[in-house]
Amino acid sequence: MAQNLAIPSRLCLAPGPSPVPFRVRQAMANPVIGHLDPAFLAIVDAVQQDLRDVFGTANRVTLPVSGTGSAGMEMSLTNFVEPGDTVVVIRQGVFGQRMAEAAEKLGAQVVAVDIPWGQICSLEELSRVLAAHPQVRLVAVVMAETSTGVYQPLDGWAERIHAAGALFLVDTVTALGGIPVEVDRQGFDIVFSGTQKCLSAPPGLAPFTVNERALERLSRRQHPVPSWYLDLLQIREYWGNARLYHHTAPISMIYGLKEALTIIQEEGLTARYRRHRQVAESLWAGLEAMGLELMVPRTHRLTTVTTVKIPDGIEDRVVRQRLLNEAGIEIAGGLGQWAGKIWRIGVMGEGADISHMMRLLVELRRILHDLGMPLPSGVEALEAQYVAWERESSEWRAG
Amino acid sequence: MAQNLAIPSRLCLAPGPSPVPFRVRQAMANPVIGHLDPAFLAIVDAVQQDLRDVFGTANRVTLPVSGTGSAGMEMSLTNFVEPGDTVVVIRQGVFGQRMAEAAEKLGAQVVAVDIPWGQICSLEELSRVLAAHPQVRLVAVVMAETSTGVYQPLDGWAERIHAAGALFLVDTVTALGGIPVEVDRQGFDIVFSGTQKCLSAPPGLAPFTVNERALERLSRRQHPVPSWYLDLLQIREYWGNARLYHHTAPISMIYGLKEALTIIQEEGLTARYRRHRQVAESLWAGLEAMGLELMVPRTHRLTTVTTVKIPDGIEDRVVRQRLLNEAGIEIAGGLGQWAGKIWRIGVMGEGADISHMMRLLVELRRILHDLGMPLPSGVEALEAQYVAWERESSEWRAG
Repeated sequence: MAQNLAIPSRLCLAPGPSPVPFRVRQAMANPVIGHLDPAFLAIVDAVQQDLRDVFGTANRVTLPVSGTGSAGMEMSLTNFVEPGDTVVVIRQGVFGQRMAEAAEKLGAQVVAVDIPWGQICSLEELSRVLAAHPQVRLVAVVMAETSTGVYQPLDGWAERIHAAGALFLVDTVTALGGIPVEVDRQGFDIVFSGTQKCLSAPPGLAPFTVNERALERLSRRQHPVPSWYLDLLQIREYWGNARLYHHTAPISMIYGLKEALTIIQEEGLTARYRRHRQVAESLWAGLEAMGLELMVPRTHRLTTVTTVKIPDGIEDRVVRQRLLNEAGIEIAGGLGQWAGKIWRIGVMGEGADISHMMRLLVELRRILHDLGMPLPSGVEALEAQYVAWERESSEWRAG
Repeated sequence: MAQNLAIPSRLCLAPGPSPVPFRVRQAMANPVIGHLDPAFLAIVDAVQQDLRDVFGTANRVTLPVSGTGSAGMEMSLTNFVEPGDTVVVIRQGVFGQRMAEAAEKLGAQVVAVDIPWGQICSLEELSRVLAAHPQVRLVAVVMAETSTGVYQPLDGWAERIHAAGALFLVDTVTALGGIPVEVDRQGFDIVFSGTQKCLSAPPGLAPFTVNERALERLSRRQHPVPSWYLDLLQIREYWGNARLYHHTAPISMIYGLKEALTIIQEEGLTARYRRHRQVAESLWAGLEAMGLELMVPRTHRLTTVTTVKIPDGIEDRVVRQRLLNEAGIEIAGGLGQWAGKIWRIGVMGEGADISHMMRLLVELRRILHDLGMPLPSGVEALEAQYVAWERESSEWRAG
């Protein structure tokens, strides 16, 4: 086994990377073969089809971008934004903010719609913004905001965005494989994600899909795409039928992604989404029974990331360091305006497991006790919620 | 082990990906931990130091870019080229051409210096170009052209480029770990590479280093860097002391790279370069004994990629497909103007092994025989050359 690498035992319950199953890690240990080898191209075909299934799309151009989730964002913007374009970005957290920055770097006129953290953007608000900016070319939104734990409903959005003549770009990084994405049904034009969240593959690839409407826009660009690495017109020649060399695909990562997608197929998407919800709701019941406060109202709370208010008088870093050092559990702190104020717990992929959440509650309570904050136990409430769901799931499974 | 992935047995002798050692592949199978976990950051530190050693640099900003070698090229150009900049690109093959295209996409005024394929750019030619373009801001060159098999000597270049007020960018993709790069001694300002060549790690990371001269230029940019993903000013906050989150590092790939760099340390750089030369010269002796013609004169022939003329009357694809299907050996065809005219053989990292080259010669000769081209054997000449080198190496090792 590996020399010199002393990887400690960790339970990764931050919102990414999520725990990566043994099968996926072993897949990456397979021999590396050529990126133009027919045997590798067969795996590429399979990965593309599996990604279509989990995205819920028939889009021809569906592929893993050779970079992390942020490379998927960059791919989505650099190809579909031109200098001077009006781009509406819904800014509900760090990842909306990031899209606004990236679009600005590309010379776009960014119309940022600021939504208070923890809240959602309504269809009415969207319509108001579209009406105020009739020249809008693209609307970008995060479906699952990793920084806040908010699920942004997007029903009806595509219709209005398309009526305004704009493309609809959706960040599904913290959604794909954990909650339904349904690209075609929802009318998303450009969609990106990451592998290290609910797909439970390692970080390093960005699943990406784009429809013909967006490709048609791309074919009519006035300015060259300012990126060579992420130039979609060239990249699709490798991922399309031509299989022309553009850049060397990250072979081992694609082995890992294929195995992760196989595991998802074995579980089934519907069962997987239910599991994420069951474990998340159990976690919420446990946290609330402990007296902790959740940051996002139930109506638009994300199952894949739970945000918890840090109790007054408790220091963020002390708790997280003790969790890591004493229990080997990683959770995340807040980002941006919520730094030091919240904890973020990932309920993602392999991490969406009731035993993991029990262990977290037990250790978190123990440490808060030690710090002079005696809280009631949450595990009984967690168990009750879990069992209620399990009963319902049994009925659902029985048909 | 991996389900559904049926990876055939292959000997990868194309110019990348090169064969990846078991230890490196096993390192990637380690559990994924968080990108901000102190245990992971210790690995990050070690990788950065190891990369400095192999680059031959003390540059603070030395890191693996989260993408393949082409992402390293993009990183090098997008941060250090501004719209309107005069950029000199030495165009000796596909990868020089690629840098010219990428710089043009960024709005640069590209001065392409076209060198006939298989030849090198002289110091006099460089000086002439610099004199003709006094406003030059950057000079980009490929040290080891993967498409032609040419080694471009760069002694004395930095002095002239710096005297002209320009930055010196060097593509070392097919050099790093196989031939000396010596960034500091040679005065290179911006340097990128890839992991799937002479480092014998899988494709997916781009080692990159940049000195203070270049960083100072970056700090005075007039236009924003048009990329968010590859914005060096932000990226270095993670790879520097601050360790601020920018994008999630590709954890498993970094495990693999660390192990590959450890293997290089164990062998020692000087011994490694000698091995590459010993195996390459043995291969050349074998190919020439068979009556095959090498494309590049010995004076500037690259040890890491050998380019061979395809004999008249022999069809490129037929031979390569038979090599792959009958012998499991992958070599590459030509690119660009040499497509269909040459074969390219990688002598890279773990691939630089005399037994691999013997196997290749035997199988290649067998297939050419079958196709009606009886050639003499090359293995005896290969052996003689190898043994001569081995004798010399023993003396060298004995001190």
